[in-house]
Amino acid sequence: MNPLVRMQTQLPQDGSRVRSPYRGLANRGGRASVLASRCLLAAAALVAAFGAAAQADDKIVIAHRGASGYLPEHTLEAYAFAYALGADYIEPDLVRTKDGAFISMHDIHLESTTNVEEVFPDRHREDGKWYAADFTLAEIKTLRAEERLPKRFPQGASSFQVPTLQEVIELVQGLNATTGRHVGIYPELKSPAFHEKEGLAMEADALAILKQYGYEGPDALCYVQCFEHPTLKKIREELHSELPLIALVADHKLMAHVITDEGLDELAKYANGIGPDKELLTKDPTLVARAHAHGLKVHPYTVRRDQKPSRYDTTADEYHYILVEQDADGLFSDFPDDAVKALGR
Amino acid sequence: MNPLVRMQTQLPQDGSRVRSPYRGLANRGGRASVLASRCLLAAAALVAAFGAAAQADDKIVIAHRGASGYLPEHTLEAYAFAYALGADYIEPDLVRTKDGAFISMHDIHLESTTNVEEVFPDRHREDGKWYAADFTLAEIKTLRAEERLPKRFPQGASSFQVPTLQEVIELVQGLNATTGRHVGIYPELKSPAFHEKEGLAMEADALAILKQYGYEGPDALCYVQCFEHPTLKKIREELHSELPLIALVADHKLMAHVITDEGLDELAKYANGIGPDKELLTKDPTLVARAHAHGLKVHPYTVRRDQKPSRYDTTADEYHYILVEQDADGLFSDFPDDAVKALGR
Repeated sequence: MNPLVRMQTQLPQDGSRVRSPYRGLANRGGRASVLASRCLLAAAALVAAFGAAAQADDKIVIAHRGASGYLPEHTLEAYAFAYALGADYIEPDLVRTKDGAFISMHDIHLESTTNVEEVFPDRHREDGKWYAADFTLAEIKTLRAEERLPKRFPQGASSFQVPTLQEVIELVQGLNATTGRHVGIYPELKSPAFHEKEGLAMEADALAILKQYGYEGPDALCYVQCFEHPTLKKIREELHSELPLIALVADHKLMAHVITDEGLDELAKYANGIGPDKELLTKDPTLVARAHAHGLKVHPYTVRRDQKPSRYDTTADEYHYILVEQDADGLFSDFPDDAVKALGR
Repeated sequence: MNPLVRMQTQLPQDGSRVRSPYRGLANRGGRASVLASRCLLAAAALVAAFGAAAQADDKIVIAHRGASGYLPEHTLEAYAFAYALGADYIEPDLVRTKDGAFISMHDIHLESTTNVEEVFPDRHREDGKWYAADFTLAEIKTLRAEERLPKRFPQGASSFQVPTLQEVIELVQGLNATTGRHVGIYPELKSPAFHEKEGLAMEADALAILKQYGYEGPDALCYVQCFEHPTLKKIREELHSELPLIALVADHKLMAHVITDEGLDELAKYANGIGPDKELLTKDPTLVARAHAHGLKVHPYTVRRDQKPSRYDTTADEYHYILVEQDADGLFSDFPDDAVKALGR
């Protein structure tokens, strides 16, 4: 790997960035496990020396869909904004186009965050939705990306586009070059089973792009996340990727088995952590500790200043509950600056 | 003016943002002058109470071409990045297209910051340059905006466009809405005489757009800057705009008369401040004080971490010289975070 790419995509070798996706993991066996133990000892020494600050520095702020509280989600502008606010990881969601491009978008259909209904009024399916898988990248590039929610960025204002995965990576890596920081990416594969049915299987092609940009191996500044856990299992066991993998867990009875001790045991065979709905932490205050006992990181989603659960007096209280009381390893936030502040940086 | 527009474009009436473009100006006579005096007294009291911090809060950070040290200049991404870094004003340079649109670009020709040579190889003039005035906005929107300088953002990486003035304003006002901040714009009219010859006179049309977005009157969060001072005189005296106006002053013998006491006296009749090349402050350490004596603000250009004059040991020293020793009222920086830090915010 050339040195420039290494700088962009891997943990610095001088230890200047102490946020390994693998910190504290003991589930990979052999040499990795020994290394992990040494890391743990080193981390423990750091914590002893610097107290809470060192601990906070170890936790990560994931900019959910970019700084989507401030700018339309999944636009290069929202990612740039999040980067400047101090996020550690930028989160692109990934969906494929008819011609196989990976675009950054939350939904597999286009109408919630673009003006596709105006530009291509007749191109919806029978369910009334405009699927990205029915449009070429060139067609999608003619659309305006727009704010999803009514009380955030003025809907339709200014001018935003739908970016590709490559454009997101080049933005983040370019900023890493100009700032000297080491910000990572945290891509989510959206609905891999749907894409497979459309003839657009995601796993191998996404890994190939990530590898092309230097994201490979366990120290990569890249977490791959997915709600469909067979996808993660395939990535680890069939495609032999060592990238850090995060199993998303919705607050739904269909996923309840995943966070039993048995489920976590199974998950730890191929994943490096869980990304649970934050409600699950409240419903089961043992979840984070149990996941940690299985060697799994915990990155709950999503904290939003403008959608604060009523059980907290302030947004700061919610961050405190998740990061300090529950000791999660990071979190997804629409307002990354709030999370950065909560970590005392 | 509707309340939302007022919030976006004018100083807050509760005094929560103490950076009036008119602070300390005494050259407008009558009621404005009395108000300015009262402001001065209030400001003096604040400074007495809070010392250097209050004073620093009064100075402004102008994000030069956006955060152009980190991202390609004059892109929405560079503006968003600058906004997040804490800039007080975002600087779009303005150039007109064949069909009269105002685009944000430093040069009147396109080839230094776009891929126009590849897309329209034959559309240059006899001097070998591709002029924005020869292209429609639709054509310019097909171009990629790219980094100008070799050692900054990787040239050609990711995907950026050339924005219009309207898109820049809507970005800034949208962010003002989502953040609650009051960030202004600092547009520069580039080469008005050239544009006039091309049948694309700038002044009235630019003012009309600014007014449409609520930027009018002396308290607007908008400075209009220009190297061609007759343009500023026309804006004030013929078009009767009360917007804050800044006369740019190059470090060139042809502009030397402008910063004589006689020249400043003349300037103060229609402008609110000067934007001198920072070299002029070193060559004439009385300049800032003399401009202040004429009731003129001073906003020197441009501080760049990666182009530090050798007379300073550190970039911080350069900011200190301009903002503290020379007591300038703000400055243009390619790295707005450095300026924010220098002001102790």
